[in-house]
Amino acid sequence: MPGILPAVVEVEGGDFVLVALVTVIALGSLAMAVIFRQQVLAAGEGTENMRRIAQAVQEGANAYLTRQFRTLAVFAAIAFFALMVLPADDATVRIFRSVFFLVGAGFSAAIGYLGMSLAVRANLRVAAAANEVGRDPAMNIGFRTGAFVGMATVGLGLLGASVVVLAFQDEAPHVLEGFGFGAALLAMFMRVGGGIFTKAADVGADLVGKVEQGIPEDDPRNAATIADNVGDNVGDCAGMAADLFESYAVTLVAALILGSQAFGDQGLVFPLIVPAIGALSAIAGVFLTKPRAGENGLKTINRAFYMSAAVGAVASAIAAFVYLPGEWSEFGTGVDAELSPPVFAAGAVVIGIVLAAAILALTGYFTGTDHRPVKDVARTSLTGHATVILSGLSVGFESAVYTAIVIGAAVFGAALLAGGTTSLALFAVALAGCGLLTTVGVIVAMDTFGPVSDNAQGIAEMSGDVSPEGAQILTELDAVGNTTKAITKGIAIATAVLAASALFASYTQSAFEEVGDAGSLDLLSEFLVYDAKLIVGALLGAGVVFLFSGLAINAVGRAAGAVVMEVRRQFREIPGIMEGTGRPEYGKVVDIVTRDSLRELATPGILAILAPVAVGFGLGVGPLAGFLVGAIASGTLMAVFLANAGGAWDNAKKLVEDGHYGGKGSEAHAATVTGDTVGDPFKDTAGPAINPLLKVMNLVSLLIVGAIVSLSYGEDENDFLRILIAVLAAAGIAIAVYVSKQRQSSMGDDVDTPAAPIEAS
Amino acid sequence: MPGILPAVVEVEGGDFVLVALVTVIALGSLAMAVIFRQQVLAAGEGTENMRRIAQAVQEGANAYLTRQFRTLAVFAAIAFFALMVLPADDATVRIFRSVFFLVGAGFSAAIGYLGMSLAVRANLRVAAAANEVGRDPAMNIGFRTGAFVGMATVGLGLLGASVVVLAFQDEAPHVLEGFGFGAALLAMFMRVGGGIFTKAADVGADLVGKVEQGIPEDDPRNAATIADNVGDNVGDCAGMAADLFESYAVTLVAALILGSQAFGDQGLVFPLIVPAIGALSAIAGVFLTKPRAGENGLKTINRAFYMSAAVGAVASAIAAFVYLPGEWSEFGTGVDAELSPPVFAAGAVVIGIVLAAAILALTGYFTGTDHRPVKDVARTSLTGHATVILSGLSVGFESAVYTAIVIGAAVFGAALLAGGTTSLALFAVALAGCGLLTTVGVIVAMDTFGPVSDNAQGIAEMSGDVSPEGAQILTELDAVGNTTKAITKGIAIATAVLAASALFASYTQSAFEEVGDAGSLDLLSEFLVYDAKLIVGALLGAGVVFLFSGLAINAVGRAAGAVVMEVRRQFREIPGIMEGTGRPEYGKVVDIVTRDSLRELATPGILAILAPVAVGFGLGVGPLAGFLVGAIASGTLMAVFLANAGGAWDNAKKLVEDGHYGGKGSEAHAATVTGDTVGDPFKDTAGPAINPLLKVMNLVSLLIVGAIVSLSYGEDENDFLRILIAVLAAAGIAIAVYVSKQRQSSMGDDVDTPAAPIEAS
Repeated sequence: MPGILPAVVEVEGGDFVLVALVTVIALGSLAMAVIFRQQVLAAGEGTENMRRIAQAVQEGANAYLTRQFRTLAVFAAIAFFALMVLPADDATVRIFRSVFFLVGAGFSAAIGYLGMSLAVRANLRVAAAANEVGRDPAMNIGFRTGAFVGMATVGLGLLGASVVVLAFQDEAPHVLEGFGFGAALLAMFMRVGGGIFTKAADVGADLVGKVEQGIPEDDPRNAATIADNVGDNVGDCAGMAADLFESYAVTLVAALILGSQAFGDQGLVFPLIVPAIGALSAIAGVFLTKPRAGENGLKTINRAFYMSAAVGAVASAIAAFVYLPGEWSEFGTGVDAELSPPVFAAGAVVIGIVLAAAILALTGYFTGTDHRPVKDVARTSLTGHATVILSGLSVGFESAVYTAIVIGAAVFGAALLAGGTTSLALFAVALAGCGLLTTVGVIVAMDTFGPVSDNAQGIAEMSGDVSPEGAQILTELDAVGNTTKAITKGIAIATAVLAASALFASYTQSAFEEVGDAGSLDLLSEFLVYDAKLIVGALLGAGVVFLFSGLAINAVGRAAGAVVMEVRRQFREIPGIMEGTGRPEYGKVVDIVTRDSLRELATPGILAILAPVAVGFGLGVGPLAGFLVGAIASGTLMAVFLANAGGAWDNAKKLVEDGHYGGKGSEAHAATVTGDTVGDPFKDTAGPAINPLLKVMNLVSLLIVGAIVSLSYGEDENDFLRILIAVLAAAGIAIAVYVSKQRQSSMGDDVDTPAAPIEAS
Repeated sequence: MPGILPAVVEVEGGDFVLVALVTVIALGSLAMAVIFRQQVLAAGEGTENMRRIAQAVQEGANAYLTRQFRTLAVFAAIAFFALMVLPADDATVRIFRSVFFLVGAGFSAAIGYLGMSLAVRANLRVAAAANEVGRDPAMNIGFRTGAFVGMATVGLGLLGASVVVLAFQDEAPHVLEGFGFGAALLAMFMRVGGGIFTKAADVGADLVGKVEQGIPEDDPRNAATIADNVGDNVGDCAGMAADLFESYAVTLVAALILGSQAFGDQGLVFPLIVPAIGALSAIAGVFLTKPRAGENGLKTINRAFYMSAAVGAVASAIAAFVYLPGEWSEFGTGVDAELSPPVFAAGAVVIGIVLAAAILALTGYFTGTDHRPVKDVARTSLTGHATVILSGLSVGFESAVYTAIVIGAAVFGAALLAGGTTSLALFAVALAGCGLLTTVGVIVAMDTFGPVSDNAQGIAEMSGDVSPEGAQILTELDAVGNTTKAITKGIAIATAVLAASALFASYTQSAFEEVGDAGSLDLLSEFLVYDAKLIVGALLGAGVVFLFSGLAINAVGRAAGAVVMEVRRQFREIPGIMEGTGRPEYGKVVDIVTRDSLRELATPGILAILAPVAVGFGLGVGPLAGFLVGAIASGTLMAVFLANAGGAWDNAKKLVEDGHYGGKGSEAHAATVTGDTVGDPFKDTAGPAINPLLKVMNLVSLLIVGAIVSLSYGEDENDFLRILIAVLAAAGIAIAVYVSKQRQSSMGDDVDTPAAPIEAS
């Protein structure tokens, strides 16, 4: 890569102290997390009935996560050994890259598990507080639960990165590749598996309960309600927490890799300082979240976000001016730009923070009930199901574009700061990612608020022990939670684009280095964007995003179908369910969804890991670069499209349920329920899983580039082995897709009789 | 561009004779078209009633196209003068590029108009033949109508290209840019406008007729039926014909540009020989389309396709070996490859022909009623509207990937023939496009068959004069037409990818030449795929595809809403419509749809033209390259996704109507009607319009690259003017989008009352 020279860096003296200080801040964040956890657990647990229900949700969630981790251990073990086999600079890197792969995966899993385990305890406490004390304490418990997850995310992310930098110095970037890959891989599986679980249960419960039997959501007579509540915890809570931890870790990894090239040793330190400041400002943000009298809950949370973002921006800028030298020559890495280093770095970080705020506003506009898009979707319910679907899709398409423009503007702005130096431009993009990271603590807290308040409402409804005032409070909190969830998705995809772009740059840089070592010089032309093979790569990259989305949506449909069959069976075979005298077997449904979700997560996961292998070994390093660009470009759009279309349908339904266009039970309502059901797997399964997908594919590419190059060029050239690997990878994908297709058809190809009427009519 | 030198070429001697021969073949094709037209017009016109209905359709279609051409004349005039202003090698090129822009636009419009004007005469003749004579003559009339359009397409395309080559010799490629741009621009507008017309009328007619009033499709009591039939002719017939002409012209243009660089003068001749052979094999194919007794109509058409493709492949290969020299050195252009020139060229052409056959098979699998995907979608109708939508989307996502893989394999295979020489690889891709072109004559014939038989069925239904046997024949022909339409879309997007990839290469090559002239050498790094700004470009390119799709779908929704209002008004205000004693005002609905479609086509059109201008002048030539890659990659996937999801829903509905899963009138049927309604704008408006969109954006980029470079580098550098142009272009897009949004909200933001029940219940 022209203009980038690998620099030998050493973190010593004052820098060593600074990084050690970051480690201390990381540990401090974890300590704060423990304190928040105690605060949550200290709250009252409500009635006997509520505790019994919460107990069932806890058991289900625990059982699912335990089985999921057992399944994923197999993948992790395979990846561990695969990493050992892949080329590395030396044995230390080879070993510790694998070891920190396990650490990253373990942290990702731990965050998910810890978040889930507190959320399933917080839900009934929120319900109890709403019932017994009032809105503000209830909201406080919910937000403190989020704060626990947020501080744990930030703490573990900073801890891992700073320890690696302290221990491995200039080899840290390579070891961190393993750490980031572990985090991303686990998060992707948890996102996909949890996403399938939560939406299969939700869609299945709705299809039989709301649509067929006409009973309300969370009605205890519906055998799928416990599974639905378990899903909130394993999908929206554990899955999202692991996902945001992964975003955090991978963005940091990318910044450290590119930073050491641009800034030398200071480039390994500054990207740690920024999120450390973010950790401190997030703690401030949590304490600032105090609802004012009569204020909408969303406003409170937004205020906390903006204040902590402002603190983070100012503090990061100060850090840049204090820590970084005024001249480029002092770095000794040969990079140069018109702006001075502190201005450059502070500018990039601020761009990232502004990006977060812009996405917050955009997502709020497109998915909030107060604005035109959702109102328009709701109005189309007057002309039926099809027009609701079409208008929601339109909102999704259009909002994706504006979000892409905002993200693109951030990347472009960051690149402009570098004034034409490619390597510096890429570091600026990664630094903007670090700027985004300063907001992650508060973002995670906002997000976890969603499933906790959703669950609290479910427990209240099922127990029947909550007063109308308490129920009203919980409904309000649930609506706030819906919007915060949508916002988090926007932020998550923004971090994904920044991190993926930066990782992608690391990939190409490694390719150049490796090929240089192998003695081939004509590689440059493979990376020119108009190379025909590179366009093929881009086509395939976009293709993987489409296939992944299709597979995830399909998986939800299949698993939901199994839920429908089981709930119908229970209504038929267990006497007295509808009258409330018989008790449904909730556990059966949880078991079915658990089994199906774990089975279904394999195919998209295999696709994500093996597609870059097939393209890279089969077509070459240049086409693999095209592949990554195609995936990043269309993945960004697709992720936002799916998230916002889903969010708009969800809230359009809420508008109708609030009494517009005929209200609950009308034809218009039935049409918006259709929209919401279509939107469920969009926004909670396929859409958010694209975020880790992009990073897994970039990290896999980064890890295999050395092997591709050594088989393609130089003395180890071995076309037979190279093609064999590609063919095996392609075959692996084909088999995985084929197996999942077969499952589909075994679900009743012979059913050719009309079922009982199934629409609200 | 490394390895490509601009060559001075001259077509003289034997080559001149050969190109003149191509011109003769072009004229011969046009003569054949006239003969086919006579054959169609010679058939009987049926009953008085049928003639009266056909008359109304003719008048509506004529009125729409006339008004559309008047609207488009404004755009054409602006583009004409804009082309005059843009830099060119010399005054001749500058003037004739503009002149041939008008010729290309005129040919595109003429094809659309001629196709429509015969189709509106053929429809009642098909209906009459089915009623009075039998299936085979009816099918023959339909297919001869298609053959007329097919031969006209091929004839005008070859005529334009060969005349330009004869007249302008080595300047031909630049003049042809104008020709291709004219064809693509007009086709895009006709595709978008016609697509909005046909689906607004169709969806509006269905929503009021089938869903609200429960009367069958094409029932004369529905005021929108004439508009629906007009739509088939202006959208599916005129729009598709213009689109395929544009594919033909642009692919040829790209091949000639790249051919002259790779092969010298022979590169200007060989890409003309291949489609000329295609013209001859298409005539053979038309005469081979003779239905065997008891054979399914689709089988007949498929046989004709495969036979004419085989003839084309063999003849092209022979031409390559006879015409091209055996050694690369004989071209004198400095290119070289391992395979000999004839093997290289024949291989590339055959790859294109095989690609066409592969897409035919793939599309048939994913949208045909005999295969699993459509059956699966139909089965999900048992669990309601939402599951039908989800399963159709899944089919769309997945089929898009397989189609992308097939197209990618063709591009990669073509590139491999060149063995590492980038310029040759790109010419190979363009030659594969020429291979595809050999099948266009038959493809257009197949496609036009669709709307003609659809219309024939409509006329039969409305007139009430057709016997049950005749109606059965027409239903069968209509089903055949549905599948041929889906196949054409697959082929059209394949030509779009090949042509766009080749044009894109011409764009980058021009960029290098221009920058070389301007004396700047550091441009190369802007084209490296990992440049951060280039990734921003890719993001924006993917964004335009999403926005364009969203706008097109939205436009159909809005226009259909106006139709619903008008038809409801007529039912309310005109007495006796339902009893058959009152006559609906068909013309009013045609007027409304005409007005709305013309208003709606502006925004997507402006987006397509101005987006490359904004990106190119604003961000630079490198990011514009990224923009084009992003657009090609995600546009390919999106186009196939939209087309196949729509096709699968359409045929799933047909399966249910054939009596599966409860049959007509069941809840399952209502669910599939929802799917079909969502699919309508997918498959007939947004999806097919992406095809010309990709080419318009590539051609605009090719045309403006000189201006961008001269403002960005060298002595004419003028950042103020450059940024001003970009800002104006971006503002133009923003205003167009804003205006179309305002229209949406004026359609009744205040409607907050439930309408009459609107679902079949």
